[in-house]
Amino acid sequence: MDALKRLVEHPVTERAILALVVINAVTLGLETSPSVMAAYGGPLRVLDQAILAVFVAEIAARLAVRRLAFFRDPWSVFDFLIVAIALLPATGPLQVLRALRVLRVFRLITLAPSLKRVVGALIGALPGMGSIVLLLSLVIYVFAVMATHLYGPSMPDKFGSLGISIYTLFQLVTLDGWSGEIVRPAMEMHPYAWIFFITFILVTSFTVFNLFIGVVVNAMQAEHEAEQIEKTGRPPVSLDDLMQELKRLRGEVAALKGAAAERSA
Amino acid sequence: MDALKRLVEHPVTERAILALVVINAVTLGLETSPSVMAAYGGPLRVLDQAILAVFVAEIAARLAVRRLAFFRDPWSVFDFLIVAIALLPATGPLQVLRALRVLRVFRLITLAPSLKRVVGALIGALPGMGSIVLLLSLVIYVFAVMATHLYGPSMPDKFGSLGISIYTLFQLVTLDGWSGEIVRPAMEMHPYAWIFFITFILVTSFTVFNLFIGVVVNAMQAEHEAEQIEKTGRPPVSLDDLMQELKRLRGEVAALKGAAAERSA
Amino acid sequence: MDALKRLVEHPVTERAILALVVINAVTLGLETSPSVMAAYGGPLRVLDQAILAVFVAEIAARLAVRRLAFFRDPWSVFDFLIVAIALLPATGPLQVLRALRVLRVFRLITLAPSLKRVVGALIGALPGMGSIVLLLSLVIYVFAVMATHLYGPSMPDKFGSLGISIYTLFQLVTLDGWSGEIVRPAMEMHPYAWIFFITFILVTSFTVFNLFIGVVVNAMQAEHEAEQIEKTGRPPVSLDDLMQELKRLRGEVAALKGAAAERSA
Amino acid sequence: MDALKRLVEHPVTERAILALVVINAVTLGLETSPSVMAAYGGPLRVLDQAILAVFVAEIAARLAVRRLAFFRDPWSVFDFLIVAIALLPATGPLQVLRALRVLRVFRLITLAPSLKRVVGALIGALPGMGSIVLLLSLVIYVFAVMATHLYGPSMPDKFGSLGISIYTLFQLVTLDGWSGEIVRPAMEMHPYAWIFFITFILVTSFTVFNLFIGVVVNAMQAEHEAEQIEKTGRPPVSLDDLMQELKRLRGEVAALKGAAAERSA
Repeated sequence: MDALKRLVEHPVTERAILALVVINAVTLGLETSPSVMAAYGGPLRVLDQAILAVFVAEIAARLAVRRLAFFRDPWSVFDFLIVAIALLPATGPLQVLRALRVLRVFRLITLAPSLKRVVGALIGALPGMGSIVLLLSLVIYVFAVMATHLYGPSMPDKFGSLGISIYTLFQLVTLDGWSGEIVRPAMEMHPYAWIFFITFILVTSFTVFNLFIGVVVNAMQAEHEAEQIEKTGRPPVSLDDLMQELKRLRGEVAALKGAAAERSA
Repeated sequence: MDALKRLVEHPVTERAILALVVINAVTLGLETSPSVMAAYGGPLRVLDQAILAVFVAEIAARLAVRRLAFFRDPWSVFDFLIVAIALLPATGPLQVLRALRVLRVFRLITLAPSLKRVVGALIGALPGMGSIVLLLSLVIYVFAVMATHLYGPSMPDKFGSLGISIYTLFQLVTLDGWSGEIVRPAMEMHPYAWIFFITFILVTSFTVFNLFIGVVVNAMQAEHEAEQIEKTGRPPVSLDDLMQELKRLRGEVAALKGAAAERSA
Repeated sequence: MDALKRLVEHPVTERAILALVVINAVTLGLETSPSVMAAYGGPLRVLDQAILAVFVAEIAARLAVRRLAFFRDPWSVFDFLIVAIALLPATGPLQVLRALRVLRVFRLITLAPSLKRVVGALIGALPGMGSIVLLLSLVIYVFAVMATHLYGPSMPDKFGSLGISIYTLFQLVTLDGWSGEIVRPAMEMHPYAWIFFITFILVTSFTVFNLFIGVVVNAMQAEHEAEQIEKTGRPPVSLDDLMQELKRLRGEVAALKGAAAERSA
Repeated sequence: MDALKRLVEHPVTERAILALVVINAVTLGLETSPSVMAAYGGPLRVLDQAILAVFVAEIAARLAVRRLAFFRDPWSVFDFLIVAIALLPATGPLQVLRALRVLRVFRLITLAPSLKRVVGALIGALPGMGSIVLLLSLVIYVFAVMATHLYGPSMPDKFGSLGISIYTLFQLVTLDGWSGEIVRPAMEMHPYAWIFFITFILVTSFTVFNLFIGVVVNAMQAEHEAEQIEKTGRPPVSLDDLMQELKRLRGEVAALKGAAAERSA
């Protein structure tokens, strides 16, 4: 067990796995080409299976070493799920799972510290988005219900059902083809449709912009703080801290003055 | 009356209303589906009416309790208007009001504190936008009048009237399909149209960008300040405050020195 | 002359001119509608001419009062040019100048202080953009020359001459329809065209983004400083100022210590 | 040799080269016009060759003066490469190199200090982008492999091979025509394609936004610091520095108090 632990945590093992992920990324890419598959399909599939076998063995070894602690580290769970997908049967209606095998390549994220940090920062930014994403979803939902009632009967391909309306309104949020594909055709049948759509665009653009800026600024502040802690071993000095230090100093000067006055008395 | 007040302000009542809003959001969504309406149209409509009745009763109770003070809280007025829309007759030319019934779902905003805060922050950002929105409107208006004169006769579907020109120029502001749909066709008939349109795009892009950045930065500062006040009970320390504190301290040290000099004299 | 000066600078005069500009904005808008012109064309034109006469008189009066100093204020020059355009003959090849008459409405900017401030801030941001706009123009020019050689013969409507290529590359900078309208058609004839276009898009997107951010941030800092000066009558306190004040204080404390040591000796 | 050095480094030489680059930019632009080439093709080509000869002579002189040090300055290498391209044979399959001759105009960047600074700042921002560009490439690669499997057979012009899929997904990242050109057609054959594409859009938009903001903010900080160093000759004062200065001051005041207490004892 101890030998297994040393083996799993050895830097050479880690580098070997990293190399295998990169090789696997290349082979999975080559497998998309029919001409390559016609010529080298057999060896590529064997190599793919062999690499997968190594990944399964590595995850199994890590599981054996860390046991339940394995599932407490979200990155390990991520590795586990990504490898597990490749083991699922991919036949019949589940054939789409075959395409998901390439997700294995995302193991690069857990293996390269700089990628891990970037992804961690991006994920760390998500909770702060909660309220504003909820608000945006609410706005899209309400406008989608209205659009389905108002424009569904005349434009079934754009607003035929609640789901289609939500998709179309998401397109409006990204401003892609909003006028030529959606609003001008709608205005041909409903001359006042622009009121509905331009309100929607103004409200959501403003909200989305706020969302992004807010999130990114928060992420930056968090990173700045983390950097400071890493460099100096403590949170960054704030103006508040300075003010408190100044007040303390003034207290001491006042005490000094008091003592001097006493002495001279 | 007092019992009514307790009832209206009881947290259980609030949570019950929140639950009804969520249920109503689902039923209003289901009502967009013809197949669902064919199968369960009757019960859904009854449920809808029942929930509306509860909303009306709740608003009436809050009105009875708070009387005129009710209308002083903008969020209450918002609830009132949203529920009132559902009571308007929605027949004949007013049938569009039927679609507005789903606005009721926006009561979620007044019921969920986190949404309320986000919406409050977004609305609070609006006054600061006043001047620049006015400028942008002015630019669009002036260019729309010019475009109607210059391109209206040859492109009636894009610049046929002042209203249509304003819509088309708004499309240009969002940069959606500006070249393929608008400027290239215009240049086929007016080879120098690009001068007009590219000037417009440069001016408005720059202004819109400024608008958003300005607004968002202001909102962030306001939030930062509010956060600080919430945490420490007072506005954030500024560099100015620090400088004043430092000057006061220096004054005291000078006094101390003066006293010492006197004493030693 | 003194009476004229009092008249020109009287707040009532200013407000009257502001009202006339707003009325003129409305009449110029109404003049775009053929049906309105058919019914009220005569009176509208008369009103328009009357308002123009007032503007001319007002500018003449201001010129008479301030003489050469008039031309030293850029806003006055702006007013002068805008009114002058309306006096130019607008017949034959110069008929396009007729459409420019509506520029008069921009006098609102010089009359409303809040608009004047916003426009001033936007213009103040321009000099800081110099280098990066020059760089962007250089990149577009060089790529346009190359595109005209490479793609001009096969796509004359997109890259037929240097001017057309510059226009098309500007469209690429805005990312509007870059793939469907330009790059996919180009790749049908030149399979490696994506190297050229994606390089161009990456380089210019990055530069434009930098341009906007840089400019806006500078404008904000300038405004922040101006605000501070307005509020406190002096530039904002910097960390540098604080440090200097602290060092001065420390000098005094050291002097105090020296004096004490001397006295006790 | 010394005379050559003086000549090469003389400001007049530099200004003459700058003038030649500008003239060459104009002639290279004129050469794109068939009518200009028909009328003045001969003289233009002679002028072009003459200017190129001067550039070659200048680079050779700089090489002779600085020898290996020449290649240590990246800007000199840039000049060298740009001029070298023009000397390559441009016939047969290499005819595309003819179009690259216009890259010579980029010598403006090394000759104008303000452009040099801007480009330097932009390039300086690149290393900070490493991790996030790697992440983005990884995401695009993995999704491209999946898209080739899932949508390749039914949409060969959009996802027919790994390369085409990468191009199409890059188009999705820019949000240009994503719905009308790509996702709606895909949804006609694969009703659940929106799950794939909207996931991709959300993930990459968020990442790209983060990328740009991060890079630009870093560049700004670096510039701010450089500006400060240029102005005051040392890095900007930080809150940390202030805190340390304050603590040192407090130590001295404490010492003063101790001394006073001792004396009075």
